[in-house]
Amino acid sequence: MPAGETHPGGLEVRLHELGMVLPPAPTPLGKYARASRAGSLLFVSGTLPLVNGTLLFAGRLGENLGIGEGREASRIAALNALSNAKEYLGSLDPIRKLAKLTITMATTPDFTEHAAVADGASDFFSGLFGIEDGHARMVSGVYSLPKGSPLVTETIFELK
Amino acid sequence: MPAGETHPGGLEVRLHELGMVLPPAPTPLGKYARASRAGSLLFVSGTLPLVNGTLLFAGRLGENLGIGEGREASRIAALNALSNAKEYLGSLDPIRKLAKLTITMATTPDFTEHAAVADGASDFFSGLFGIEDGHARMVSGVYSLPKGSPLVTETIFELK
Amino acid sequence: MPAGETHPGGLEVRLHELGMVLPPAPTPLGKYARASRAGSLLFVSGTLPLVNGTLLFAGRLGENLGIGEGREASRIAALNALSNAKEYLGSLDPIRKLAKLTITMATTPDFTEHAAVADGASDFFSGLFGIEDGHARMVSGVYSLPKGSPLVTETIFELK
Repeated sequence: MPAGETHPGGLEVRLHELGMVLPPAPTPLGKYARASRAGSLLFVSGTLPLVNGTLLFAGRLGENLGIGEGREASRIAALNALSNAKEYLGSLDPIRKLAKLTITMATTPDFTEHAAVADGASDFFSGLFGIEDGHARMVSGVYSLPKGSPLVTETIFELK
Repeated sequence: MPAGETHPGGLEVRLHELGMVLPPAPTPLGKYARASRAGSLLFVSGTLPLVNGTLLFAGRLGENLGIGEGREASRIAALNALSNAKEYLGSLDPIRKLAKLTITMATTPDFTEHAAVADGASDFFSGLFGIEDGHARMVSGVYSLPKGSPLVTETIFELK
Repeated sequence: MPAGETHPGGLEVRLHELGMVLPPAPTPLGKYARASRAGSLLFVSGTLPLVNGTLLFAGRLGENLGIGEGREASRIAALNALSNAKEYLGSLDPIRKLAKLTITMATTPDFTEHAAVADGASDFFSGLFGIEDGHARMVSGVYSLPKGSPLVTETIFELK
């Protein structure tokens, strides 16, 4: 069930209940926008696990980073993605739900625990929007990412 | 032309004509949903080439797996994606067409036959929906995938 | 602001002002369509940096290709993507804006300059559509791409 119905106070109140504070929206790394609306969809740009403008972790899952660090990185990147959405929209109120989450990770060639890492972000979004109308998800392990980040999240939100 | 018009009996009848039986919808590997609807789009989560819950093949294209095995894996993953859509919607009837197919493959660094592998899925979907209003497609070769799968499909269906 | 408003002559006139000529739309490499419309979204298939049907560059960023070559490759792939959209729609007139740009690159494992490479495409699209309502973007570095291409662009346009 969309958060607007389960949480009359809206996503801001729900965030507060969860003890979460959105970080400042990251500055794009190039000539693009942090998000772009098309009809009732909001496409948010790839978002890194930044804390105060610095990567929480750098490196590669299965090499110098374990699953616990990956989960925390995906949770932080999810917070940054939501912050990007809020900065673009002016508020979280127009957001109905998360439709699609893609997490692209830098890994070793034989890494297989993508799902466990991505659950750091999915747990956060499920806590925020509820689990009844959850998000679709895609994960993969790639060879390189901007700034040596261990992962990047992409999000597509549905707007009211 | 959408299947609803070319095949009055709908996609279920068309599947039967093609001799296809949908496998049970795979269980998500983490805290996400098998699909998520946003307006007239249905985003289906990344889907592996599973048969009875087990990977049809594991490994890497160009290493231990050839193009023929890759084509079969992509066809099986496509069936699973359609099964995910049906499980979410309750029926295939609401589906108008496949809008976008993304196939992400585990490959060797010099693999170049992504298109031939992905045609296993595209042939299936073209047979089902017709070729006049075909799907857009993206393919790439990555470093690692969940469970050591050789490929994952992502699908976006347009609903009626 | 969408191009339709900033440029009364439309995108064709704007392209001409920019000194750009669209290449012929590339032929799909497999059993898919060059683009697929779903409601007000146009999903364009993965597009290579082709000039007269031949890759402008082949190889890997950070290995045999530098950032300058990557930028030019991403600009050329963007032109091909727009040509695919025009071929599908019959004209550029129905396009309101670029909603999402994804650039997937073949790189070395420690490549970090994805944003600089992708700006070749983003600069082109920003010049065409204006910068006020820019596109969301995702970049990553993968292990292999079709035909040994150094990059592939995916685009989602919003239609009027």
